[in-house]
Amino acid sequence: MLKNMSSFFVRTLREDPADAEVTSHKLLVRAGYIRRTAPGIYTWLPLGLQVLKRIEKVVREEMDAVGAQEVHFPALLPAEPYQKTNRWEEYGPTLFKLRDRKAADYLLAPTHEEMFTLLVKDMYSSYKDLPVTLYQIQTKYRDEARPRAGLIRGREFVMKDAYSFDIDQEGLNTSYDLQRQAYQRIFERLGLEYVICSAMSGAMGGSRSEEFLHPCEIGEDTFVRSPGGYAANAEAVTTPVPAPVDATNVPAFSVHETPGAKTMEALVEYSNEHYPRAEGDWTAANMLKSVVVALTHPDGEREVMVIAIPGDREVDMKRVEAAVSPAEVEMASAADFENHPELVAGYLGPQACGPNSPLRTVDEDGKISGSVRLLVDPRVVEGTSWIAGGNEVDKHVYNLVMGRDFTADGTIEAAEIREGDPAPDGSGPLELARGIEIGHIFQLGKKYAEALDLKVLDQNGKTQVVTMGSYGVGVSRVLAALAESCNDENGLAWPMILAPFHLQVLATGKGEELFETAGSIAKAVSDAGFDVLYDDRPKVSAGVKFADAELLGMPYVLVVGRGLKDGVVELRDRRNGTAVELPVAEASAEILRVLEENRESNR
Amino acid sequence: MLKNMSSFFVRTLREDPADAEVTSHKLLVRAGYIRRTAPGIYTWLPLGLQVLKRIEKVVREEMDAVGAQEVHFPALLPAEPYQKTNRWEEYGPTLFKLRDRKAADYLLAPTHEEMFTLLVKDMYSSYKDLPVTLYQIQTKYRDEARPRAGLIRGREFVMKDAYSFDIDQEGLNTSYDLQRQAYQRIFERLGLEYVICSAMSGAMGGSRSEEFLHPCEIGEDTFVRSPGGYAANAEAVTTPVPAPVDATNVPAFSVHETPGAKTMEALVEYSNEHYPRAEGDWTAANMLKSVVVALTHPDGEREVMVIAIPGDREVDMKRVEAAVSPAEVEMASAADFENHPELVAGYLGPQACGPNSPLRTVDEDGKISGSVRLLVDPRVVEGTSWIAGGNEVDKHVYNLVMGRDFTADGTIEAAEIREGDPAPDGSGPLELARGIEIGHIFQLGKKYAEALDLKVLDQNGKTQVVTMGSYGVGVSRVLAALAESCNDENGLAWPMILAPFHLQVLATGKGEELFETAGSIAKAVSDAGFDVLYDDRPKVSAGVKFADAELLGMPYVLVVGRGLKDGVVELRDRRNGTAVELPVAEASAEILRVLEENRESNR
Repeated sequence: MLKNMSSFFVRTLREDPADAEVTSHKLLVRAGYIRRTAPGIYTWLPLGLQVLKRIEKVVREEMDAVGAQEVHFPALLPAEPYQKTNRWEEYGPTLFKLRDRKAADYLLAPTHEEMFTLLVKDMYSSYKDLPVTLYQIQTKYRDEARPRAGLIRGREFVMKDAYSFDIDQEGLNTSYDLQRQAYQRIFERLGLEYVICSAMSGAMGGSRSEEFLHPCEIGEDTFVRSPGGYAANAEAVTTPVPAPVDATNVPAFSVHETPGAKTMEALVEYSNEHYPRAEGDWTAANMLKSVVVALTHPDGEREVMVIAIPGDREVDMKRVEAAVSPAEVEMASAADFENHPELVAGYLGPQACGPNSPLRTVDEDGKISGSVRLLVDPRVVEGTSWIAGGNEVDKHVYNLVMGRDFTADGTIEAAEIREGDPAPDGSGPLELARGIEIGHIFQLGKKYAEALDLKVLDQNGKTQVVTMGSYGVGVSRVLAALAESCNDENGLAWPMILAPFHLQVLATGKGEELFETAGSIAKAVSDAGFDVLYDDRPKVSAGVKFADAELLGMPYVLVVGRGLKDGVVELRDRRNGTAVELPVAEASAEILRVLEENRESNR
Repeated sequence: MLKNMSSFFVRTLREDPADAEVTSHKLLVRAGYIRRTAPGIYTWLPLGLQVLKRIEKVVREEMDAVGAQEVHFPALLPAEPYQKTNRWEEYGPTLFKLRDRKAADYLLAPTHEEMFTLLVKDMYSSYKDLPVTLYQIQTKYRDEARPRAGLIRGREFVMKDAYSFDIDQEGLNTSYDLQRQAYQRIFERLGLEYVICSAMSGAMGGSRSEEFLHPCEIGEDTFVRSPGGYAANAEAVTTPVPAPVDATNVPAFSVHETPGAKTMEALVEYSNEHYPRAEGDWTAANMLKSVVVALTHPDGEREVMVIAIPGDREVDMKRVEAAVSPAEVEMASAADFENHPELVAGYLGPQACGPNSPLRTVDEDGKISGSVRLLVDPRVVEGTSWIAGGNEVDKHVYNLVMGRDFTADGTIEAAEIREGDPAPDGSGPLELARGIEIGHIFQLGKKYAEALDLKVLDQNGKTQVVTMGSYGVGVSRVLAALAESCNDENGLAWPMILAPFHLQVLATGKGEELFETAGSIAKAVSDAGFDVLYDDRPKVSAGVKFADAELLGMPYVLVVGRGLKDGVVELRDRRNGTAVELPVAEASAEILRVLEENRESNR
């Protein structure tokens, strides 16, 4: 493919777009790869579309290599299957819903578990038909509350989603591993660094789940890793539970005045001053911090709940969100506090909520009411002693012992993970990092097959519910993640495997001969099967051509300019900044040698 | 590519699906190419997706060959640009509309004129940037009132849409011709018969417009052609207007009793019996038939209107629809008649409506009211004399002369076109045929550029509104049209250029050697770059394998069966039904020779 810059549909911008915060977004817009159409919705210009196709090709090849078969579902889907699995409700406002002219409910699919399940149910009926893994590369829709970072969190985006169908768990393990290996090969071929993290499966249901994260400062996901090789999404990290503590010698709890000690810092200071203890200074770790949140359950019910964690940690709302999914969570509102006068803001302690509250009643069916639920951090084990709110303004309780003076309705992974926390598998202290989620693989198990009645006959002629896996790559997000790592201060810098053009030829100078030479080299390289962009613009300065080439980021740039009178042209390597002079007569051959050598390169 | 049938995601059906009326729909479902997901919404299975990709490849190559550049727009679009051009309203219920979580209006794009216009406006500013033609292959959405015939009229479908941008009409003519030629090459390469018909541009606006129709009995479009080469969509045919008639000798009109003559037939019979004339028998051609219709204008206003045509013709509502677009039209309802007591059903004549009605008033601004509008067929010229309704039950008016006794608010192309009608260009009598619209090209002119303010500086430094063209191929519909012509009573029968697999190898028999032979030929052909489907199912009878192969429709079928003991295999040509025996040792080489020879064949 050979394109002339003079007629190629691209315009570069010298300024960053006003709405762009991250490098990939800025550069992809400035270099004319994409344009914003609406919040979180982008148009692919010729350059961007070409990179997207290159990524799709790699994804497709690796899917085909593990025997996954490609199909293509509609994006516009009837509501019914999603109602059966309850996701019509669970997705909440993230689901784009609409009605057709007959007032039938439809949605724009955020993911396709239901449809693949129904398709296999339609086509297959026996264990002999299994295993099968199907995939598509398709446009997905999610009405994100906060679309951001260009292609990284969009509302319309391209995704590869695959689904495996097996007769049993052993089969699912094999299918899952095949996809996992395919993902490793995809990201390796693309040159995209990744970490495989244990993950929570959230609204997807199911058991085993791992995320492929691209480590990157601007990533939305926090993950952890240990020297021993443990890696997990922050949401999925479980806190090692300490052994119970012997509280025999802890004095009975007592309520004390703590005037004005509304903050953790003030309470620690006040306690050390007025109620010092022999074992050493009180610290925030001795305080029990009670946080009031409000859940919105899929059925719309709002539930106020108290979370109690050690006072030296903050509540991580993303971890809470994952823990309570599919319910949504936010901090309790003023109205919530008005509805619950027993929850005294700033002085709340565990005795005013949970099982210990005098308001608590449990009916015959085990349904609790009267007092809100209290969930505690796993570190709040039997026998631990705390300073907690006294449930009255300016009062706190000292020596309040878990299991003796209060109990909880359960535990919750709500506290932030800290650098240096122990890995749950004992593999050492955790290090925190940020990343972009580029892939996610799930063992769904039987959730969808049960909801939609996907059964086949097994070897004994009995019906068996099929076991499923679900595997996604955010294709357009991968492009953004790659742009995030393939750039320097002058613009994009693509490796060969991704670049929309392998070579950009610049005619920097005047005269028919110069343009003829540049044009004929461009044509020769293109004729040999490489993609070439020839900057043939007649009245554009060398400086502008150089700057545009750096911004556009093709891996090799050939400059046909001043040197031509001495019979040489210059081949530049965009990524390492090196340049070599080539005699004109040998230029095409030498360029072809270099391109051929690096054809699949991802460096 | 080599796929084994034992694990390939396909299941054939022996019975036609209940909802399928046309051959392509029946066969594509039965052979496992597509599945219905919702009315007018289909899922592509591996076989169907492969054919779709083959068509897309041809379309892409021919677009690239004429210099069109590929981009990709979102399907989910903000309402605003479509509001500016008024299509947000004009599309009516055919437009899928929805709101996002912030209650902003969005649509699923039925076509993208607005977005391409805005993109070029964003990127370009000078006549030097032009011409440019951009295209995409993309999913489109139209909430059809009556989705039908499988992929032929769907609600979610794949379309190639291209848009040209020129500084002047001369440029537009060139861009239009390039697309027109590309379309001819696309359909020729695919082997899809087509007729280029003059068309009305309907809701698209603009001037020149042609449709590419595939002649086909099940097509929804009626078109006409003349021996002299005229071809047009029935909606676009204009009636040659006869010269005015001298009505000097026509007696004054008179009202007569015509008891019970409510139908055209009864009126002709009654007239000949009771009011015979010297010039010969009355025929239906002497009667003026008045039909009451109701328009719904884009602003929602309902307008009752009378159409009068010669009594020997029927009103063609599709022609009316095209003539009144963007208004929608239907027959008047009982309520409409109640609102207009002056319109006496069955006895309506032109004196009760239009400019001649005593109810008619015209205000200072020329706005008419009081009586509904009367539009007449172009054949109802000055001086023509008619028997028309008397506007009272059981009464008709005789010798009612146009221009003398009544006038109209205008003419309308409402009457059906008949076999033998004269072509408007004088090229002979028209022949009627049906076809499937597979492509449509429009000269849009400045409509969209004006509405969205797309201007560039011209050579004199003045701003000029850009002139546009719009060009569409219904890619998924083309697939259906091809399936409609590539089949016989046993199933599909694809040419090489379209077939999902070039060769299907059948192992029909038992024994390791037979499967080994079949498998190794399949592999050899696949290794040489062809796509092979190997029916390796161990316990499936030869009869079922033959039937499946015929239904699936690959162009060549190799049977490795009974003949193997004599050292021969059989190569069948699916389309002409011939078969040749090949010695096993030479089979791969001979098959490769045949496939190579026919690689791009569309026969």
